[in-house]
Formats: sequence, C-alpha cells, structure tokens
Amino acid sequence: MAGHLDYALERVVAFSDGIFAVAITLLVLSISVPDLGSRQTDSNLQTQLFDSIPSVFGFALSFAVVGIFWVSHHRLFETVRESDRLTLYVNLLFLMTICFIPFPTGVIAHYGQLTTAVVFYAATMAFSGFMLAILWWVATIRPAHRKAMRRMGLHFALRAVGMSLVFLASIPVALWSVDAARYVWFAIPVVFAITGRIFSGTASPTSR
Amino acid sequence: MAGHLDYALERVVAFSDGIFAVAITLLVLSISVPDLGSRQTDSNLQTQLFDSIPSVFGFALSFAVVGIFWVSHHRLFETVRESDRLTLYVNLLFLMTICFIPFPTGVIAHYGQLTTAVVFYAATMAFSGFMLAILWWVATIRPAHRKAMRRMGLHFALRAVGMSLVFLASIPVALWSVDAARYVWFAIPVVFAITGRIFSGTASPTSR
Amino acid sequence: MAGHLDYALERVVAFSDGIFAVAITLLVLSISVPDLGSRQTDSNLQTQLFDSIPSVFGFALSFAVVGIFWVSHHRLFETVRESDRLTLYVNLLFLMTICFIPFPTGVIAHYGQLTTAVVFYAATMAFSGFMLAILWWVATIRPAHRKAMRRMGLHFALRAVGMSLVFLASIPVALWSVDAARYVWFAIPVVFAITGRIFSGTASPTSR
Amino acid sequence: MAGHLDYALERVVAFSDGIFAVAITLLVLSISVPDLGSRQTDSNLQTQLFDSIPSVFGFALSFAVVGIFWVSHHRLFETVRESDRLTLYVNLLFLMTICFIPFPTGVIAHYGQLTTAVVFYAATMAFSGFMLAILWWVATIRPAHRKAMRRMGLHFALRAVGMSLVFLASIPVALWSVDAARYVWFAIPVVFAITGRIFSGTASPTSR
Repeated sequence: MAGHLDYALERVVAFSDGIFAVAITLLVLSISVPDLGSRQTDSNLQTQLFDSIPSVFGFALSFAVVGIFWVSHHRLFETVRESDRLTLYVNLLFLMTICFIPFPTGVIAHYGQLTTAVVFYAATMAFSGFMLAILWWVATIRPAHRKAMRRMGLHFALRAVGMSLVFLASIPVALWSVDAARYVWFAIPVVFAITGRIFSGTASPTSR
Repeated sequence: MAGHLDYALERVVAFSDGIFAVAITLLVLSISVPDLGSRQTDSNLQTQLFDSIPSVFGFALSFAVVGIFWVSHHRLFETVRESDRLTLYVNLLFLMTICFIPFPTGVIAHYGQLTTAVVFYAATMAFSGFMLAILWWVATIRPAHRKAMRRMGLHFALRAVGMSLVFLASIPVALWSVDAARYVWFAIPVVFAITGRIFSGTASPTSR
Repeated sequence: MAGHLDYALERVVAFSDGIFAVAITLLVLSISVPDLGSRQTDSNLQTQLFDSIPSVFGFALSFAVVGIFWVSHHRLFETVRESDRLTLYVNLLFLMTICFIPFPTGVIAHYGQLTTAVVFYAATMAFSGFMLAILWWVATIRPAHRKAMRRMGLHFALRAVGMSLVFLASIPVALWSVDAARYVWFAIPVVFAITGRIFSGTASPTSR
Repeated sequence: MAGHLDYALERVVAFSDGIFAVAITLLVLSISVPDLGSRQTDSNLQTQLFDSIPSVFGFALSFAVVGIFWVSHHRLFETVRESDRLTLYVNLLFLMTICFIPFPTGVIAHYGQLTTAVVFYAATMAFSGFMLAILWWVATIRPAHRKAMRRMGLHFALRAVGMSLVFLASIPVALWSVDAARYVWFAIPVVFAITGRIFSGTASPTSR
C-alpha cells in the first residue's frame, strides 16, 4: 500500500514540477513587447525599453518568489516519502496559487506605480505563502511523523509564514508609498536567515 | 512484447503529464491584465480588478475540472499496465479535449453573464468527460481484463459520465438562469460521493 | 562510451517530449476568444463562436499532425538506442519545425479561406515531414545498423515523405480551391495504410 | 549526504529541462499572426507573410542560441554529479536569463531594422552567456575537483565567454549597420571550432 502511494507521489512531484516550470516561464509574457505603431524610430524604442524596466523587475521578483516556492516544495517531497488524500488536495490548491501568479505579475508589471497593484500583488503572494505553510503543516506536523521531520516541517512552515507576513506588512506601507512597500520585501531574506538561525542544528535546508 | 509496450506506456504517461501541466497553467491567460489606457488611477484599477473576479472563478473552476481529469487519468495508467493501439488513439483524442479547455475557459471568463458562454462551457466539459469515460471503458472493461480491474474501470467510467451528465443537465437550466446553471455544477462532488458509495469495497480511488 | 551516449539520449528524449507537449498545447492559442466589444449579446457571441469553427478545425488538424510526428519520433528513439552528433543536430532542426507549427496554425485558423494561408500551411507541414524523414534516415539507414532496423527506418522515413508529398500535392489544388485542398489532406491515412501494407512483416509500428 | 544531493540534482535537471523546453517553444509567439483587418485578400496576406520573414529569422536565431545553451547546460550536469548551494543559486540565475529570452526575441522580431533592438538583443544574449560561463566556473573550476573536470569546465566556460564576446563585439558594429552586426554573429561557430581545437585531447564535447 505504501509502495502504491509512493508511486502516486512520484507522479504528483513530476506534475508539480511541470506546472512550476511552465508558470515560471510564462512570467516573461508580463513584459509586453513595445508597440511603436507607425513611429518606428530608435529613440522611441529606447524610451519604451526604459519604460519596461519596472516590468523586468516585476518579472525578476516573481521569478525569485516562485523559485523559493519551488525549492521549498521540493524539500517537502524529499522529506515526506508517503502521503495521503489531504496532502494531495492541499498540494493542488497550492499549485492553483502558483498557476495564478502570472496574473498579479502582469498587473504589477503594467501598473507598478499604483498602490492598488502593489497591494494586490502583495496580497496574492501572501496567500500563496500561507497555502505553502498549510501544505507543510498538513504533510509533516502530525503525531504519526517522527520528531525530526516535524521539526523540519515547523521550520519550513515558519519560513513560508514569515514570507507571507512580510508581504502582508507591506500592504499598509503601500497605502503611504509604493516604493517603500517594495523595500519592505527585501526583509524576506532576513526572515529566512532568522528562521535558519533558530532551527540551526536541525536537518538544515542545504539545497535551499 | 509486453515489456516493449510498457516502455511505450511510460512515455505516453510522461507526454500526457506534460500536456496536462501546460494546459492547466495556460488557464491563467484567460484572466486578462486590465488595460487602463490613459486613465491610470487607483480607482480605475480597483474597478477593473473587481470586474475580473468572474474570470478568476472561471480559472479556478477549470483548474478543478482539469485537476479531476488528471487524477482520473493517473488512476487509469496506474491500473492498466499494458496497452494497445486503440487505447493510445483514444488517449490522444482525450488529450485533444484537454488542450482545448483554455478556449471555453477564456469564453466563460470574458462573457460569463451570457447564456451562450455557459452553455458552450458546459457542453465542452461534458464532451471531455465522455471522452474520459470512453478511455476508461476501452482500457479496462474488456473480457481480457481481470474482474477487479473491470469493476474499478466501471467505477471511474461512471464518475466521468456522471460529471458529464451534470454539465449537460446545466444546459437547459442556463437557458433560464446562468447563475442557477453554475450552482448545478456543485452537484459534481455529490455525484462522486454517490459513485464512491456504490463501489465501496472495490479498490477505492484513495489518491483521488 | 555507449553508456554515456545512452544517458545523453534519455535527456534528449525528455527535452523533445517537453517541446512536443508545449507546442501541441500552444495550438489552442490560435483560436481567439471572441472580442464582442460593447455589443455583448447572446446572438453576437453565437455568431462569433460559429465563425471560430474553422479555427477549431485548424487546431484539431495541427493536433493530429503533431501527434503523428510525436508517435513517429518516439518510435525512432525506441529503436535507436545509441546516437551521434549528426542525429542530435538533425533532431534539433526537426524540433525547430515543431516549435514553429503554432504560427502556420494561427495563420490558417484566421485566414483559412485564403489560398495563401492554405499553401503556407501545407508547405510548412511538408517541410516538417521532410525533416522527420531525414531524421529517420540519418538515425537508422546507415551501414552500421542491423538490417531489421534499416528496414523499419525506411518504413517510417517513407511514411513521413508520403505525408509531405500529400501536403505538397495539395498546394496546386489550393490555387484552384482551398476546400478541395483540405480534402486532399485526408489522403494521409491512406498513405499510412499503403506504406503499412508494403512493410507488413517488418517489426510493425504497433504503438502507432 | 552525497546521495541526497544527487537526488536533489536530478530534480534540478528535470526542472531546468522543463524551463528550457517551455522557453524555446514560447519563442514562436514572437512571430505575430498577421492582422489583416477588413482587407482579407491573398495579396495582403502574402505581403504580411513576407514582412514576417525577419521575425522567423529572429525565432530561428534564438532557437539556435537556446539550443546551444541547453546542450552546454546538459554537459555540465552530466559532468558534475554532486553539487552545492552556490551552484544551485547560480543555476537559478542562469535559468532566469533563459526565461527572459522570449522578450528580446520579440523585440528583434518586430524592430530588427532598428539599432536599438539589435543592441538590446546582443546585450541580453551576452549577459546570458556570461551567466553560463559563471555557472561552469562555479560548478567545476575549484580545487576540490579532479584536474580533468576542471579542464573540461574551462573549455565550456571559454566557449560561453567567447559567444558572449561575439555578441558584445556586434554592439559597436550595430551602431554603424544592423545588418553587419548580424553577420558578426556568424563568428560564433568559428569561436566554437577554435576553443574545440585548443582543448582537443580533453574529454571532448561529443554530444554537442
């Protein structure tokens, strides 16, 4: 029975990887190729390419976030070698939020100077992070699991929650200044360093 | 010979998984990034984001349907370990309907208040479900197969047919009210529960 | 050394499968979601959906062609278990034509009533078929290979050439009538039946 | 521990392959299906298809570059069988540049006659090549590695640097003539031949 579920798990991981790979590559579509219309001059194209720099940052930011999610997702399925229905359902819900990310990325790429775009982006990223935390919690933090796995699950669940909290914290800041809100996001690696320090001595997330 | 076919089967499963992963991720493209034109204000963006809520529901619904199809497809190829030409052809036809789903999803995402969009969406989903039922029937319900496999094949074929019938049943309802038609779709999990009850005692679809 | 190349081959097959899966799924983007503008009525949407029926046929046709290419490609890499630089280069060129297919599909989906679109579509498909034939030829029909493999390679190379010739033959027909040109394409399964008859007794393409 | 990292490595390779396959297939979207508006005549479509020939060349060029990157990336992960955090981070950065390529490809496909487009394209390709060289350097050229691997790493790092230098060299040329700049790019295979000659006798890149 366990063997059967392991086989199913392998397919789930392959399917999840496919979704991650497609979603992370679709992010580039949020950078629109400039439409110069009839005024096809070098200075025009230069202006438009400079104008698309914020879109490029949006792409890079979402790439980094999805990359972090992917690494965490992989640590999960390296750790949990058996599974159950609830884990698989929560995994599908988490993947739905991953598939959704190109939309808020497109919004912030086009309207990054508007508070609404930044708040919407931060809110959806926070939601995705909470789903990841719930996935870790459901998959590892239960009585049946060994103590070591639960400690590692707690570590990664807290990392995801911490990331979500940073995104949430940036929302009131965005009401005051969208640029300041973006700087708040740089607190994410700090959060990761802190959780890493707290849980040092645990099976550390080496491949993070 | 069986070994050769098993190898071919593995590739078919990998190819199918790739198609499922791409199709489910392309669904997000049915949610258009708002085009604010020259009126780039927060209130404008808020209005447009609120207006795209039905698109998000369309995305989530199709994600759920494709997810259900993927789970059933995997149960099939976990069960059937050998195969033949007819199965492979029917599988390709089923995959064609999966690849098609982003189109009706885009239609219902943009014109969800129109009866035509809801009817079109329900009809294509029903068609896809019938193809899945035929695939299960072709692959499992034949004299050559063990009785247990045929019972399981009957179970999953009926699940798929039940889902299709719910979508078909929603079409006359949509002529009266598109919102009511959407509520009809919530009968799908009920159908799954009923077929599950009928076939309980069979090798149950644990990883569903 | 052979082991090393086999490993490389596995990766090449996985990469090729990924490209096939993405290209076949992108075909759906050639069916545009109708743009009703401000006239969002049921009759309008019905008209536009009826108008997109040729696009749907274009999608289905390209899906079938890419599906046939994929099956043949897989037979190739099931047969050829070792490889060399030339095969890998020709494979990349063949994959380039596969990646290109969404473009002629979009053209025929939108302008299928124009001779130019039909000719362009047929020409690119013929080109792709010839590349596949060259790939089979390069990979199998050389002195070093066993006689059985060369016979099978000849079979599949001829199938691909036959398909290409049908597409080429439809080009002059299209100058007279685009609809007649489409009917010519139905000769493809006939070609497959004939080549299959000629080479019957060979290791038959069972998983075709 | 090494075994654990090898497992992680396999997943990283599969994820990278997925990204390469999606990115290389998305390139076709840079060739826009002509929009004939209300003037749907054969001569119009012919004109527009002829006008899209530069786009097709842009597609083919980027396909070749991404193909070269993929081959080199695979050689890397065939060679390096263990890994560390730094390699994985640099790999993600390199993959970010791969995902980005559809954007400059779209720009050069639409505005290939403008100096700005050619310079932008060459600059991004050079950047991507440098990232690949850094990846090879980080992964292989360190004291811990065997001398043979370091020599091979040096070979491939130099190939990538050489490719980047050709792209950089084309930038001043583009200021004078965009067509001349394109011809400069044909020096890339020459660079590969030269580096191959220098390092002949090393474990040669047979599957290149």
